[in-house]
Amino acid sequence: MPESIFETVREKESPLAEQAADQISQLIIDQQLTNGEKLPNEFDLAEQLNVGRGTVREAVKLLVARNVLEIRRGRGTFVSHQTGVVHDPLGFAYMPDQLRLAHELLDIRLNVEPWVASLAAQQASPEDIAELRALCAEIEALIHTGQNHLGRDEALHVRIASCTQNRVISKLLPVITYSVQLFGKLTDDRIYQETIDTHRRIVDAIANHDSDAAGAGMRQHLMGNLSSIAEQERLYAEGKSSEKLEKLRP
Amino acid sequence: MPESIFETVREKESPLAEQAADQISQLIIDQQLTNGEKLPNEFDLAEQLNVGRGTVREAVKLLVARNVLEIRRGRGTFVSHQTGVVHDPLGFAYMPDQLRLAHELLDIRLNVEPWVASLAAQQASPEDIAELRALCAEIEALIHTGQNHLGRDEALHVRIASCTQNRVISKLLPVITYSVQLFGKLTDDRIYQETIDTHRRIVDAIANHDSDAAGAGMRQHLMGNLSSIAEQERLYAEGKSSEKLEKLRP
Repeated sequence: MPESIFETVREKESPLAEQAADQISQLIIDQQLTNGEKLPNEFDLAEQLNVGRGTVREAVKLLVARNVLEIRRGRGTFVSHQTGVVHDPLGFAYMPDQLRLAHELLDIRLNVEPWVASLAAQQASPEDIAELRALCAEIEALIHTGQNHLGRDEALHVRIASCTQNRVISKLLPVITYSVQLFGKLTDDRIYQETIDTHRRIVDAIANHDSDAAGAGMRQHLMGNLSSIAEQERLYAEGKSSEKLEKLRP
Repeated sequence: MPESIFETVREKESPLAEQAADQISQLIIDQQLTNGEKLPNEFDLAEQLNVGRGTVREAVKLLVARNVLEIRRGRGTFVSHQTGVVHDPLGFAYMPDQLRLAHELLDIRLNVEPWVASLAAQQASPEDIAELRALCAEIEALIHTGQNHLGRDEALHVRIASCTQNRVISKLLPVITYSVQLFGKLTDDRIYQETIDTHRRIVDAIANHDSDAAGAGMRQHLMGNLSSIAEQERLYAEGKSSEKLEKLRP
């Protein structure tokens, strides 16, 4: 019976492995271990936590699955980069109606990102500005040569967030720019020139430490995305389009 | 050598189990399985994915660790509530300097939650309003009897978010109200009456569908938290306090 097998898995995993995982987490927190620092070896951990090595191994697996730890072949177990942040941490991929999701995300981005851009304009260092300009140039080159620029587009938004020096904004931005990939599916070529223009406008404003212009530029950029989705929806409603939209519909 | 053991774990886990986990995720997405729906059994999954049962079992463990799946004893494997959202999804617990984190979170809440409260005032149904009032009353009763109200306080903020009908706001709010627990550590009794008053003011405004008052009430509430932290920091700087703050310092 498959159920009984899963049951065995559970009996083996929880609560002992979960408890050990919690203890290892607490050890990382208490000792303020960060990205790249090495964990004690399995024997030491087992002794320290007063559990068997099998339990330590299961606990490590749980923490690897949650991106708290990573195993480097032949070198040991280390604290992960972006400790504890998994891919798609709010489970957007599992939400029904991805078109509705695109709208919901855009609502939030319209409220948050102009503020983030204006903070960035206040705080940006010369290094920040140089990197933002480089990302802009990279995106433009990708668009002009007909390549996918969405990864770099997302990187630009995340890099603007990191100018704020607020670590939570930096962690949050990649989550809400999940929509960049959705828009990539939704929008067509016409938005590309607008993307180039508004990205430049935002980065210029940040370079000039002009908060208001940075916020306004970001708002314009996101409103451009919004009207592009609306246009796709209109075509879809008229039965003229759109394969892309079709995929996102529930 | 402990490293070689971890290496074995890795060899066994990845990429095969990760690949199978991705395939199971995709199956959940494609078939739009949601909270509480049952997964095919282990044998069927192994056949469908063309992998061994051991790999399916490892893949299921990975997805359980990420809160995509849950195992119910003797009943099978089901899609989790809040699919794919783990506890502390942005890894705040692992961030050094939790006092700085409290400030960073509060900056974001000050930008986001007044807007959320004003949206809630536009959208709230009679059921929403009744539940918000019940939560308010519960929090007040806990405070008056000297019990910990922070769990219910967080629940109130999350319940206000759910009035907006924006599913992303509902997912995001529990993340940024992580700070409620931090403030609980930081603040003292003096803030309790202010909490009661501003909660009431916010909920009354939502009940009256008064967006501006809801936003202003939320802003006042969060500013109260901010000045309370500032006061603690002042005392700490003067060497008069504070055990609570001491714990949060890096």
